[in-house]
Amino acid sequence: MVSLRPASSHGVEQRPLRLGVVLSGGQAPGGHNVIIGLHDYLQRRHPGSTLVGFLSGPRGVMRNDYKILEAQELDAYRNQGGFHLICSGRDKISKPEELTAAEKTAKAHDLDGIVVIGGDDSNTNAAVLAEHFLQQGLKTRVIGVPKTIDGDLKNADVSISFGFDTACKVYSEVIGNIMVDAMSAKKYYHFIRLMGRSASHITLECALQTHPQLALICEEVAAQRWGLKDVVRQIADMVAQRAELGKDFGVVLIPEGLVEFMHDVSALIAELNELMAAGVNPADQTAVVAHLTPESADLFCNLPQFMRCKLVLERDPHGNVQVSQIESERPLIDLVSIELARRKVAGAYNGNFAALPHFFGYEGRCSLPSNFDATYCNALGQAAGALVAGGRTGMMATVFSLQLHATEWGVGGTPLLSMMHLERRAGCEMPVIKKKLVDLEGAPMAAFAARRAAWAAGDCFRAPGPLQFQPHCVADAATITLALELNRGQSMLLTAQANEQAA
Amino acid sequence: MVSLRPASSHGVEQRPLRLGVVLSGGQAPGGHNVIIGLHDYLQRRHPGSTLVGFLSGPRGVMRNDYKILEAQELDAYRNQGGFHLICSGRDKISKPEELTAAEKTAKAHDLDGIVVIGGDDSNTNAAVLAEHFLQQGLKTRVIGVPKTIDGDLKNADVSISFGFDTACKVYSEVIGNIMVDAMSAKKYYHFIRLMGRSASHITLECALQTHPQLALICEEVAAQRWGLKDVVRQIADMVAQRAELGKDFGVVLIPEGLVEFMHDVSALIAELNELMAAGVNPADQTAVVAHLTPESADLFCNLPQFMRCKLVLERDPHGNVQVSQIESERPLIDLVSIELARRKVAGAYNGNFAALPHFFGYEGRCSLPSNFDATYCNALGQAAGALVAGGRTGMMATVFSLQLHATEWGVGGTPLLSMMHLERRAGCEMPVIKKKLVDLEGAPMAAFAARRAAWAAGDCFRAPGPLQFQPHCVADAATITLALELNRGQSMLLTAQANEQAA
Repeated sequence: MVSLRPASSHGVEQRPLRLGVVLSGGQAPGGHNVIIGLHDYLQRRHPGSTLVGFLSGPRGVMRNDYKILEAQELDAYRNQGGFHLICSGRDKISKPEELTAAEKTAKAHDLDGIVVIGGDDSNTNAAVLAEHFLQQGLKTRVIGVPKTIDGDLKNADVSISFGFDTACKVYSEVIGNIMVDAMSAKKYYHFIRLMGRSASHITLECALQTHPQLALICEEVAAQRWGLKDVVRQIADMVAQRAELGKDFGVVLIPEGLVEFMHDVSALIAELNELMAAGVNPADQTAVVAHLTPESADLFCNLPQFMRCKLVLERDPHGNVQVSQIESERPLIDLVSIELARRKVAGAYNGNFAALPHFFGYEGRCSLPSNFDATYCNALGQAAGALVAGGRTGMMATVFSLQLHATEWGVGGTPLLSMMHLERRAGCEMPVIKKKLVDLEGAPMAAFAARRAAWAAGDCFRAPGPLQFQPHCVADAATITLALELNRGQSMLLTAQANEQAA
Repeated sequence: MVSLRPASSHGVEQRPLRLGVVLSGGQAPGGHNVIIGLHDYLQRRHPGSTLVGFLSGPRGVMRNDYKILEAQELDAYRNQGGFHLICSGRDKISKPEELTAAEKTAKAHDLDGIVVIGGDDSNTNAAVLAEHFLQQGLKTRVIGVPKTIDGDLKNADVSISFGFDTACKVYSEVIGNIMVDAMSAKKYYHFIRLMGRSASHITLECALQTHPQLALICEEVAAQRWGLKDVVRQIADMVAQRAELGKDFGVVLIPEGLVEFMHDVSALIAELNELMAAGVNPADQTAVVAHLTPESADLFCNLPQFMRCKLVLERDPHGNVQVSQIESERPLIDLVSIELARRKVAGAYNGNFAALPHFFGYEGRCSLPSNFDATYCNALGQAAGALVAGGRTGMMATVFSLQLHATEWGVGGTPLLSMMHLERRAGCEMPVIKKKLVDLEGAPMAAFAARRAAWAAGDCFRAPGPLQFQPHCVADAATITLALELNRGQSMLLTAQANEQAA
């Protein structure tokens, strides 16, 4: 890891630089500010520099599809959400001919560096590109910037990816509103699915922000080897417990990736993928069931009909089950309802269960960035510029001391290779940046685990309200997850606890 | 209509009053501030007064289920969302024995007045109660307060119901974010259904705030006698037009009440309700189709399968189709997709159509109130208190001159009877407060109609961002609908237009 210090102006090379920048993958609030931070750095330290924005993601680099980014145009995007200045894309620069195309573009613009703003996959790709340019003797440095609302790109040197803070706050605003509605109407359970495919950081942070009656954490589901029945039972237990207290309302948070983390459901999906590949007619459910293992057949037959149709009939271009399209809140509502009806007959439940499904995802990816993300992204952009100017390559721009006021933050870089491990992909061992899942022993999970029983039985909701942009304490506070990880979150939760005891 | 002026303190009766207050119907941001405004008025003008909060709506009045509202408890709810202080309910006080029960409660508390905070039905009920108390010689006055996020309770004296401003701003925030996402990703149409069962005021205001590619207005659908095919054709036309411009993305706003305003769908639903009442087996779709008129049978058979199941299998407690449960954005996506596939074969469309469904409703009902709603609700509460103190009954509290700064607003009251017309309900002519639908000749609709073609073809999105609570111009501006109705909205739209031309 390197740490960057401001140089005095004499003795430092201030020649104009030629830099490229590209957005890669899904939108995250603050992306424009990274580009503007980079531009700010160049204007101040290397006057006369050129910033080339590649259009529609890595494809823009390969096709040399670009526009020159000037101060006047950029000014309109400062502190604004979205990626629409240069747009993003999901292509990868990895095959030899793609690397050659990128090389040609770098040479055509005589680039000193390319800054890749992306998630784990995009930064893995940046490392490959950096290595390729080095091998070819190009002067073009490659620097990555950690972007993903999912929050799963972090490590010892990278405290947080940008966008996570804003997205969680947007989701927490609407979850909080729904929670107040549940409390006021007293007749519905709201099952809210949240974006975040592989890791449950978003669900965990939103739980810490809003104190729902139940929040599922995929990493725990996997670690405990819970199946669908276990998950349904847990939700039904909470509903039954509240019914005994005379309460037939509440909020359940469900991470988007849940279906892949329940061992029985993931086994069923794997079997279904095999069967379809082997040519079994998906419309013939009897034939499908006949080919499944007994466990999977049992699970499949107990799913609601619309869920069975979804699993076998809607396929992705590779013929696989479209896991990301599964609206897991809907079958969960059905299954919990069936379970509670069974308990009612057995005399073990005496409430009224009515539930409504919600999904929040796209609302948070292109929000105006929070004060934290706006500032953090500008700092990341400036760090990326300084790394290129300092001759570094294959590094991720980093900002540290985030627990302090922004004026005390430091910037630096950390080698992309240091974040990598070997993963088997398409039959080969590949070095890739590992997704950081929720640490079940970490401070955020511990804070949640210590409080969730109280939140389940009580009505300890917290409605944090919308993002505020006037600079003051509330607007400047980052996520509770980050505060806990940096040992500063206890006070935030203690305040919340005091409110709960008062309520 | 009466207008209230502050009295000088001498010569005015300042004896303590005994007032009741009840929340009726769905949640709307600002409800707590009405109660607090009432309390503020009593504290200042009638020290020593008692405020009785009836619990869980009109049922609380009938059962004398209440709590005494004191300053200390109320302070925690000032400017907060939700109705959880005393909660709401959907019961009506209308049968003779219910009116007698309410009378008994009013006598038990020796109430000088009851303030009913509710929508059109609840205020109709307030008028009935006022009349009953008068006939029985009770001193208890009844005053209504206009509450509904739907915005359909307004007339010459009532410019806006509280909650509409906040709800539209919350929906516009998330719609704006999704629009920026659509613009950035350039691969999805987002079909967004918005709450507002009978009137399309919310959809119209959100369209004025965010400039979507298409927004359906139920009142126009009915006036033009559009059927489902017409609606599908319009959406497909817009998608095809944009595809010719190389754009496969956009946002479509759909009012919740749409299904009831398309003449063919409403005819089908009426026929299905008749068939089910006559005992036709809903699970037997062949039998269902055999009993429908040819037009309805044709429509039914062309619906997606999940929609047909929804229509015949999910019934409300009266055995009727559950119209409010129909997620109309989903069949519309399917039907537009089928229509575009047909056009593609015919060579009339050459784009890629992928769409995602959303529904926003509960998010907006319990948000923190906007600066406008917070101030407006306090003024409504104070007006209600002053009306009771002034010996008025059967009136709705009003606030006028809303186009001026809040310090210039006036308060008053208008007779509930003056808002009523006769409507046939359960076989009898009943005087009820008429819902105010979108005026197709009004300024808000005209502003939308003048711009929608440009919004359909262009990318004129506007992302207004989250509610801001720091007092300044943006936080204090109310809805564009209200501004246009009060002749002040042109400047807001001109600014927006300038931005579009610059874009």
